[in-house]
Amino acid sequence: MSNLLDSIKQPSDLKQLSDEQLKNLAIEIREFLLKTVAHTGGHLASNLGVVELTLALHSVFNSPKDQIIWDVGHQSYIHKMLTGRFSRFETLRQYRGLSGFPKPEESEHDAFATGHSSTSISAALGLAKARDLMDENNKVVAVIGDGSLTGGMSFEALNHLGHLQTDLIIVLNDNEMSISKNVGALSRYLTRLRLNPRLRRLKADVQDMLQRIPRLGQVTVRTLEKLEDSIRFLVIPGMLFEELGINYLGPIDGHNIPDLMLHLKQASVHKGPILVHVLTTKGKGYELAEENPQKFHGTGPFELKNGKKMYGSLSTSYTEIFSKVIVEMARQDPKIIAITAAMTDGTGLVSFAKEFPERFFDVGIAEEHAVTLAAGLAKKGFHPVVAIYSTFLQRAYDQIIHDVCLQKLPVIFMLDRAGLVGPDGPTHHGIFDLSYLRHIPNLTIMAPKDGNELRDMFFTARQINGPVAIRYPKRDGLELTTEAAGLKKIPIGRSEILQPGQAVALIAVGSMVETAVRAGRCLLKQGINCTVLNARFVKPLDEDLLLQLADSHQNIITIEENVRAGGFGSSVLEFLTNRGVKGKNIKILGLSDEFISHGPTELLLHKCGLDVEGVCRAVRELNLSTVGIQVRR
Amino acid sequence: MSNLLDSIKQPSDLKQLSDEQLKNLAIEIREFLLKTVAHTGGHLASNLGVVELTLALHSVFNSPKDQIIWDVGHQSYIHKMLTGRFSRFETLRQYRGLSGFPKPEESEHDAFATGHSSTSISAALGLAKARDLMDENNKVVAVIGDGSLTGGMSFEALNHLGHLQTDLIIVLNDNEMSISKNVGALSRYLTRLRLNPRLRRLKADVQDMLQRIPRLGQVTVRTLEKLEDSIRFLVIPGMLFEELGINYLGPIDGHNIPDLMLHLKQASVHKGPILVHVLTTKGKGYELAEENPQKFHGTGPFELKNGKKMYGSLSTSYTEIFSKVIVEMARQDPKIIAITAAMTDGTGLVSFAKEFPERFFDVGIAEEHAVTLAAGLAKKGFHPVVAIYSTFLQRAYDQIIHDVCLQKLPVIFMLDRAGLVGPDGPTHHGIFDLSYLRHIPNLTIMAPKDGNELRDMFFTARQINGPVAIRYPKRDGLELTTEAAGLKKIPIGRSEILQPGQAVALIAVGSMVETAVRAGRCLLKQGINCTVLNARFVKPLDEDLLLQLADSHQNIITIEENVRAGGFGSSVLEFLTNRGVKGKNIKILGLSDEFISHGPTELLLHKCGLDVEGVCRAVRELNLSTVGIQVRR
Repeated sequence: MSNLLDSIKQPSDLKQLSDEQLKNLAIEIREFLLKTVAHTGGHLASNLGVVELTLALHSVFNSPKDQIIWDVGHQSYIHKMLTGRFSRFETLRQYRGLSGFPKPEESEHDAFATGHSSTSISAALGLAKARDLMDENNKVVAVIGDGSLTGGMSFEALNHLGHLQTDLIIVLNDNEMSISKNVGALSRYLTRLRLNPRLRRLKADVQDMLQRIPRLGQVTVRTLEKLEDSIRFLVIPGMLFEELGINYLGPIDGHNIPDLMLHLKQASVHKGPILVHVLTTKGKGYELAEENPQKFHGTGPFELKNGKKMYGSLSTSYTEIFSKVIVEMARQDPKIIAITAAMTDGTGLVSFAKEFPERFFDVGIAEEHAVTLAAGLAKKGFHPVVAIYSTFLQRAYDQIIHDVCLQKLPVIFMLDRAGLVGPDGPTHHGIFDLSYLRHIPNLTIMAPKDGNELRDMFFTARQINGPVAIRYPKRDGLELTTEAAGLKKIPIGRSEILQPGQAVALIAVGSMVETAVRAGRCLLKQGINCTVLNARFVKPLDEDLLLQLADSHQNIITIEENVRAGGFGSSVLEFLTNRGVKGKNIKILGLSDEFISHGPTELLLHKCGLDVEGVCRAVRELNLSTVGIQVRR
Repeated sequence: MSNLLDSIKQPSDLKQLSDEQLKNLAIEIREFLLKTVAHTGGHLASNLGVVELTLALHSVFNSPKDQIIWDVGHQSYIHKMLTGRFSRFETLRQYRGLSGFPKPEESEHDAFATGHSSTSISAALGLAKARDLMDENNKVVAVIGDGSLTGGMSFEALNHLGHLQTDLIIVLNDNEMSISKNVGALSRYLTRLRLNPRLRRLKADVQDMLQRIPRLGQVTVRTLEKLEDSIRFLVIPGMLFEELGINYLGPIDGHNIPDLMLHLKQASVHKGPILVHVLTTKGKGYELAEENPQKFHGTGPFELKNGKKMYGSLSTSYTEIFSKVIVEMARQDPKIIAITAAMTDGTGLVSFAKEFPERFFDVGIAEEHAVTLAAGLAKKGFHPVVAIYSTFLQRAYDQIIHDVCLQKLPVIFMLDRAGLVGPDGPTHHGIFDLSYLRHIPNLTIMAPKDGNELRDMFFTARQINGPVAIRYPKRDGLELTTEAAGLKKIPIGRSEILQPGQAVALIAVGSMVETAVRAGRCLLKQGINCTVLNARFVKPLDEDLLLQLADSHQNIITIEENVRAGGFGSSVLEFLTNRGVKGKNIKILGLSDEFISHGPTELLLHKCGLDVEGVCRAVRELNLSTVGIQVRR
C-alpha cells in the first residue's frame, strides 16, 4: 500500500502515470485520506469528492507555474498530498503542522490563501491579469463549488471576467448540493454541441437570418416561439455563464479521470474565460459520508468502521443550546424568523427548519443578502434571528450598519464560533467581532458566560426593540444544569458580580468568565482577593458598576477572547477615561495584533495568555505589594 | 406654472389625471427639479431620468400600502415630491430639511432606508415574505439601476428570490450606463412575445418534443443548432434573469408614461417574481446633463443656463491631488495599478484611466471583488491602488482582512470621503473607517494633514511591502503650495510636532490637524500653551513620541473625525495604559455613538465639537489651573 502515493514528490510525477495507475492512485489516496482524517479530524466529504479532479488538474496543468486557486480551500487536502506534503500530511491541522487550507507560506503550489467562500474567481482574475501585463503565459485555474457560487462576490467576478475576456479557467465543482439539478442527458448532449466549431461558424449566418424575422409569416413566428422556449430549457445551466460572456463546457463526470483530463486539456487551450462544469459526489468512496455528507463536512476524529465520533462531549455545546431555545421560543412567538447562510446544521437551525419551514430561510452562502433580508422582515414587524459564524459575518459588516442599525431594526445576530476555533485556524477564528460591532450605533452586544445565560440573553434580545448581537464560542456551554430552566430577562447593560473582592477587579466577557472565576479562586489561595465580574454586555456597558469598581479598586483587568484593539477592554478604558477616572492600574487582556495560527484551542488560548495561568500572571505582574494592596500570605 | 404639481398631495391624486395631464406634470416636475437642484445641489441626472417612471409607479401602485424600495435612493426626489413633500422640497439636503435619500422617519412612503447600492432586492424580498407570512396582499416593488445590479448582493438576492418564487416586482432602471447595449428592435419584438399566454401553454408540448431529440435526423440537429444560437442572441438580456427563475418583461421606453403604466399593471398581476426592464436616459430633458451625466450625477449648486458650478473652489481637493500624484508616480512605476468600483470620476482616476488603460480596472459596483482582485494582482508583484470611498469600503471589510492583510499583500487603499461628507448624510459619512481598520493585523493606516502630505503618504505607501490605508476627507487639501513639490518618504510610524508647548498635548489626525493648529493658536492667545501633534499614522502609533508627550504633559487630547469608539484616541489610550502610564487627564474628541444627519459639513463638525471652538472648549474643560498647570494671563 501507499507505494504510488509515496512516489509522488511533486505534481509533475503524475505525468508519467498511465490511466490505470492514476485510477489506483485515487484508491490509495482515498484510503489514506480516510485513515488520516479519521484520526486528525477535518473536512472529509469535500476532499473525498475531489480525488479524481485533483489528480486530473495536476496531470494536465504544471503547478506552480500554472496556478490553481481552491475556493474556500478546505478541499485542498489531495492537492497538498500531491505537492510535496504527503510525508507531513499526518500533521494536518495540528499545531505547527499543515494547515487545513491553502497557505502560500507552506508551499509555492498554494497560489493564494483561501478560507472564506467565493473569493477564487476574483483572486484568479488578479493573477491572470498580472500574468498578461507581464507577458507571461501560464494558466490560472479557479476551482469553485456550486455552493460558493451563490456568494455575490463570485458574480461580481464573473461579471468583470466576462467583460475583460481574460484567459482563465473556472472549474465548477458541482456536488449537486445547492444548484438546480437540471443537468443530465440533455446537458450531456449539449456538451458535445457547445464546443462544436461548426456551430461557432454558423453564428454569423444566423444573425443575418434574424435580420429578416419581422417579415416572417405567422406560422414561422409560432415555430420560433416554440423553439425559443425549448432551447431555453435545453441550455440550462450553461446559459447563465454564457450570458455573462463565459464559455461553458460540461457537465463532466468528476470521477472519471481520463474524461476530466480530456476536457481540462480542451479548456487549457481555450482563448478567453471558460467554465468547466464537473459533477462530483461529496463523500465519494466512503458510504457513510456519501449518505450523510453534512455530518462529514467538517468532522472531529471518528471511528472509520461506523463513523462515530471519537470523543463524545459530556456537556452541551452553545450551538445545541441555541438550537433548542429558538425552537422553544418560536413555539409561542410567531414573529421569530431564522435565517442562515448555508449553515443550517453548523448554526444549530436543523430543528427550527423542520418545525417552522415557513419561517426559516437558508439563503445560500450569501451573508450580505441574509442581513438585509432580515432588515426587510424586521421592517414589517418580524423579529429575525440571523445565525452566522463570527468570521463569516464580517462579510455583512456594511449591511449591519446600513440596513439594520441605521434603521434601529430588531434583528438578532447570533455569532457562533466567536473567539478561537482551533484547528481551522486564522481564516475561521472569530476574533474581531467585538471590535467591528461595538462602534456601530444602536447595537446591543452581549456574550454569555454559559449555556443558561445564552438562553436568557436570547430571551432578552427578543424583548429589545432594536438590533442585538450575541457572541459565543465553539465550545461547550458550561454549567447548563437543565434545559427546561425558566427564561428570564437580563436587565439591559447590567453586569454581574460573581465574586466580591478588593485587590483586583477582573472584568471578563463571555468565554473568559469561567477562566476569570477559576483564576480568582487560584489567586485567593495565594492571598489575592479578586472581584470577578461577568460583563454580560459589551454594549451598553454597565457604567454605574464600572464607576463603583473603579472607585473601590486600584487594579482593573479586563479579559476578552477578541483582539485587544478596539474591543471590550478598549471600551472600558474609553468610558473610564471619559469619566475622568485616572491613576488606576488597568490591563487589557485579549489577543494581540496578529493573525493566530491553527492548533488546539486550549493551547492557543494558553499561548495568548487567555487561560487561568495567563490571568494569574497578569495579576501578579501588577506587583500588588508595591501599590499598597494587602496581600494575604 | 406648478399648478398640477402643487395639487398632488399624495400619490393617489395621480389616479385622476389623464395621460395628457401626466405628461404635463412630467414637464412641470422637470422644471421644478432643475430649478431646485441648481440651487441646493444634489443628484440631478438620475432624477431627471426617472420622472416618467416615478409617475407611472405611483399611478399604478398604491403607496404606502404597496411598497416601493429605491435602490441607492438618490433617485427618489420625484418620489418625494409626489408623496406629500413637495412643499418642503426646497429644504432638500439642507440641515433639518428633507434627506436626499429615502428615510422612513420622513414619510410612510419611504418603505426602507437606502443609500448604499444593491440592497433593494434583498430588502424587498424581506418585506414581501413578511407580507406573505401575515397573509396581506400588497405589492412590493424594488427599483434598481443597471449599475447597482453589478453589486454581488443583488445576485445573492435574485438567486434566493428565484428559488422562493415570491411575488415581487423588480423594475430595472437601465440607463445604458453599465450593462450591455444588446437591446433594440429585436428586444421590443420579444417583449410582446414573452408574456404571450399562448407561449406559456406551449411550454409543456415543447418539453415533450424534446424527449424525442436523440432520435432526430442529421438535418434537424443542424437546424436546432442554428436556432439555438439564434435564439440565444434574441433573448438577451432577459435570459439571465429567466435562468434564475425571474420572469422578464421588457425592454420598455422609460419616458413613455402610458407604456410604462401598461407594463407595470401587467407586472402587478403576475404571480411570482418579475423583472420589468425599463430604458431611461440619465439627465433626460436637460441637454447639458444628457451630454455629460457623470458631471451632473451628484452636483453642487450650479447655473442653469450653462451648467457652471456656482461656487468654484480656490484650493485643490484631496481627490484632485491624488488624481495627479498617482499618474505622476505611475509614469515611472509600471507596478502601479488602479482599481475603482464604478467611481472613476469621484475617486479621481479619470486621468490615470486615460493614460494607463491597461493598468486601470473599473469593476462596477463591486467593492468585494475590487479588493480581492487587487490581492491577486499584488500576489504576482504588482502594487494595486484601490480607490473606494470610506463608507463603501465597508462592503469589503472581510476581503481586506482575509484576502489582503492575512497575506500581507502590498495593496494601497485610498479612502476618499473619510469623515463627514455634508449633505449626503448618514449613509455616506465615512466615520467608521479608523475603527474598522485599525484592529486588522499587518495594516498601516495614515491620514494626511494637507494635500502635500497626501502626496508624500502615497509615495511612502508604495514603499511599504504590505497593506496600507490612507484616509482623507471630501474637502480641499489645504496648504498645497505646488504640485511639483518633490515626493518624500515619511518615516513609518512617525508623527510630527507642529507646535511645541507644555499645558496640553493636542494629538490630531488628518482633517483635524488644521483645526488643532488653529485651536492651538487661539489658546495661546489665552495663555494656554499647547503642543500640537500631527499624528500622521493611526497605525503603527508613534510610540516613542507618545511616551515622551505623556512624560512631559499632564493633559492629552486626541482629535479625530471618526467615531470615538475604537478609533485613534482609543488606540492611544490602549497604548498608554498598556505601558503603565497613569494619572493623566486624557480626552478623546471624535464623533459620538450615533448616526449623524445631513447638513453642511462645517455645521455638523461644529455640532460635534470638532471645530476650533469645540477643541478650545475641551481644553478649557480640563480646568487647567486646578491641575497645577501654569496659565499665562
